Amino acid sequence: MLTYDLEARGSLPLYEYLYRRIRDDILSGKLAAGERLPSKRALAEHLRVSVVTVEGAYRQLEAEGWAEARPRRGFFAARVDRRLPAAEGPVLSPEEPPRPWRLDLKSGRRDPACFPSALWARLTRQVLSEGEHLASVPPQGLPALREAIARDLRDFRGMAVSPEQVVVGAGAEYLYLLLAQLLGREAVFALEDPGYPKIRQVYGKWGAACRPIPLDGQGMALEPLYASGAAAVHLSPAHHYPTGIVTPIARRQALLRWAEEADGVIIEDDYDSEFRFAGRPIPTLQSIDSRGRVVYMNTFSQTISPSMRVGFMVLPPRLLERWRRELGFYASAVPALEQQVLARFLGGGGYEQHLSRTRKKYRLLREAVLERFRRCPFAASVTDRGAGLHFLLRLNTEESDEALRQRAEGLGVRLAFLSEYAAVPNPTYDHTLVVNYAGLDAGHLAEAEELLAEVFR
Amino acid sequence: MLTYDLEARGSLPLYEYLYRRIRDDILSGKLAAGERLPSKRALAEHLRVSVVTVEGAYRQLEAEGWAEARPRRGFFAARVDRRLPAAEGPVLSPEEPPRPWRLDLKSGRRDPACFPSALWARLTRQVLSEGEHLASVPPQGLPALREAIARDLRDFRGMAVSPEQVVVGAGAEYLYLLLAQLLGREAVFALEDPGYPKIRQVYGKWGAACRPIPLDGQGMALEPLYASGAAAVHLSPAHHYPTGIVTPIARRQALLRWAEEADGVIIEDDYDSEFRFAGRPIPTLQSIDSRGRVVYMNTFSQTISPSMRVGFMVLPPRLLERWRRELGFYASAVPALEQQVLARFLGGGGYEQHLSRTRKKYRLLREAVLERFRRCPFAASVTDRGAGLHFLLRLNTEESDEALRQRAEGLGVRLAFLSEYAAVPNPTYDHTLVVNYAGLDAGHLAEAEELLAEVFR
Repeated sequence: MLTYDLEARGSLPLYEYLYRRIRDDILSGKLAAGERLPSKRALAEHLRVSVVTVEGAYRQLEAEGWAEARPRRGFFAARVDRRLPAAEGPVLSPEEPPRPWRLDLKSGRRDPACFPSALWARLTRQVLSEGEHLASVPPQGLPALREAIARDLRDFRGMAVSPEQVVVGAGAEYLYLLLAQLLGREAVFALEDPGYPKIRQVYGKWGAACRPIPLDGQGMALEPLYASGAAAVHLSPAHHYPTGIVTPIARRQALLRWAEEADGVIIEDDYDSEFRFAGRPIPTLQSIDSRGRVVYMNTFSQTISPSMRVGFMVLPPRLLERWRRELGFYASAVPALEQQVLARFLGGGGYEQHLSRTRKKYRLLREAVLERFRRCPFAASVTDRGAGLHFLLRLNTEESDEALRQRAEGLGVRLAFLSEYAAVPNPTYDHTLVVNYAGLDAGHLAEAEELLAEVFR
Repeated sequence: MLTYDLEARGSLPLYEYLYRRIRDDILSGKLAAGERLPSKRALAEHLRVSVVTVEGAYRQLEAEGWAEARPRRGFFAARVDRRLPAAEGPVLSPEEPPRPWRLDLKSGRRDPACFPSALWARLTRQVLSEGEHLASVPPQGLPALREAIARDLRDFRGMAVSPEQVVVGAGAEYLYLLLAQLLGREAVFALEDPGYPKIRQVYGKWGAACRPIPLDGQGMALEPLYASGAAAVHLSPAHHYPTGIVTPIARRQALLRWAEEADGVIIEDDYDSEFRFAGRPIPTLQSIDSRGRVVYMNTFSQTISPSMRVGFMVLPPRLLERWRRELGFYASAVPALEQQVLARFLGGGGYEQHLSRTRKKYRLLREAVLERFRRCPFAASVTDRGAGLHFLLRLNTEESDEALRQRAEGLGVRLAFLSEYAAVPNPTYDHTLVVNYAGLDAGHLAEAEELLAEVFR
């Protein structure tokens, strides 16, 4: 008969302790496969516990498959493997920890003071108390948020967009992934070169062919685009990353003509267009597209916070129908609570106020940074288009970008070079810094300059 | 000379009104491509505005590419297309609006009272006031959240997991999409049939071959699995949706043997395992896997709210390395704020309390629903495994599922049939309801029964 010291059970309930011990005996082979367990009554008497306790243990063994119940015959040990589970998780190499840089010109992490925390907390409390965070969200995103986005696009970008066209997604990369699935694996993607690397990483991972297309002074060059055989082109005409090129209207129109002639789609990535410091915003490709060729996309990473992970795209009618048919099964990937709070932030005027405050802050910061960096001995020239949260600084150096990067890292300085963003290497990109200035502290520019002088000594 | 009625500008600044009128003239062809614009001074005198105003308009025209500045020669109208932007967004068929069902046995939407709103609001305020929502989040997710998840898995599922193995993602479908990318397009996926349809939709959209594998009474049948040539199998051994089958230990071990022999990967989708009402939770496949063959995944959709869109997976070391190498470029798709709040909710004991409250609520609700539905004249039998938020109800009917569904919809009742979840039709699935009871109101079961009696009359 099975005999266990029930005093050794510690704080476990009796039935559970009994279950564990019998399971261990089955696992170790002490109880062989097919062996009959004692009847519940007999074991209960033997161990001086109640029949209910034994019953509980046997039922659990049966539920998990350690034992089988045969009607009117009792319980039998099941045939099981004798591998024991690991007691500890595996020992793994840790992720690369984030480095505490003394100066970081690459990430452009934001000043926390820029985030409208008090308003955000109030709106969150409001939404929670009204129970709106549990409202079911359609696949394209919360209607109130899509309406607020369409209104904002109309008022500040002059775009005529219906909320039906808006698809909310969990950040830019998630939207790239949706677009890749929407356009199909056969679609060849033409990508700006140099360009934002995640674009080609996502499309490439999806398995689409990506063709790097060089830029001229006006944006993507037309001849290589026509020659590429692309079915889709991904562009940032408002302010290209990292060169800062602003695509003028004639080139925009020529790109739309390409789309018409090649039966192609233009993905207009309007990344960072909100930070235009001179004059009015430039009309989007989407707003001058009368043939439904343009997918417009943007996120709130630049304007609110990169850690928000909310973006959206505006689909032309033909692609919207395809999206609903082929991808409409995807649930909206953004939490309902966040969509509700953001909808109220946009709709209630909080966003507009926040943007104008941030714009002012970055305009002043940019002027201070430009003024200081322009007259540094290491600066050969600055390319600044009066827009965006970065500019290019050509260096007065013969050293390779790689040597400079290594020296910088040794000094705790993180740099971004134009050459890193190129798919096709080009010596004209060398010796050029991409200065992401949004994370700099206006009060410590002298220290930043000193550190850089040490790097470029 | 260009002549405009500046009185007609309404509330627009002078320079902007002037810019718009000149742009319109270029667009309409009134100002031909290459034509020289009047000098700033001359136009200012002619229109009786300041030179600064004209300067502002010209600079904006230049920035957008409507005009070109030639050094020492002035501004010239650019060559542009004459298409005008649409003034209104396109008229689109609206999305299917959510129907206000009188009775919904399909979605299982939750009672809002179940959500821990007060605690959630407090934790959110805390995180916002500490500025933690702006902390940068590594690609695998917030370390504090991954630690809390690993602790929870250890304490309540008996799993030995290192936080390094945890990858946080924006809900189940997003995790499926990551796994598809991780396992590669050549991988054949074996999927439970019947099964949760989004699994095959996501893997299928990714372009992987999906093989439906039938179930026997213990879960996925082994012979067709071996014959399928699959490299990956996606399973819910804890409580299969929709059949409710619980896979016993011997079958679990056999599945691990398959993985070893076929060099395959098992994706253990532990969906809804928290709601086991009889006995202890069953050990996961992951916890008896000593060879690193199992990817464990789960979400907080069932336990907190489907609108949360947060899930996670636990990768074995070999796949973790591959993930970091090939997919580590993806930023975490879950907002930092939500990750921080959830980490505190898990770590501070709020989750445990919430779970035990919810479990109790659903146990009582389930008992009441089972008791009532079992003795309905339309119920032939009920298959209930003492687990999960759904059970199967076999109907006393000869009518087709489709006819029943239509009659139900006419009465405002939304039903789910077992047959809908099958990739390969099988007459044994007919006449069986999947009762997702979590959204039912315990106080209105009599009305629900009356409605169903009308459907199945």
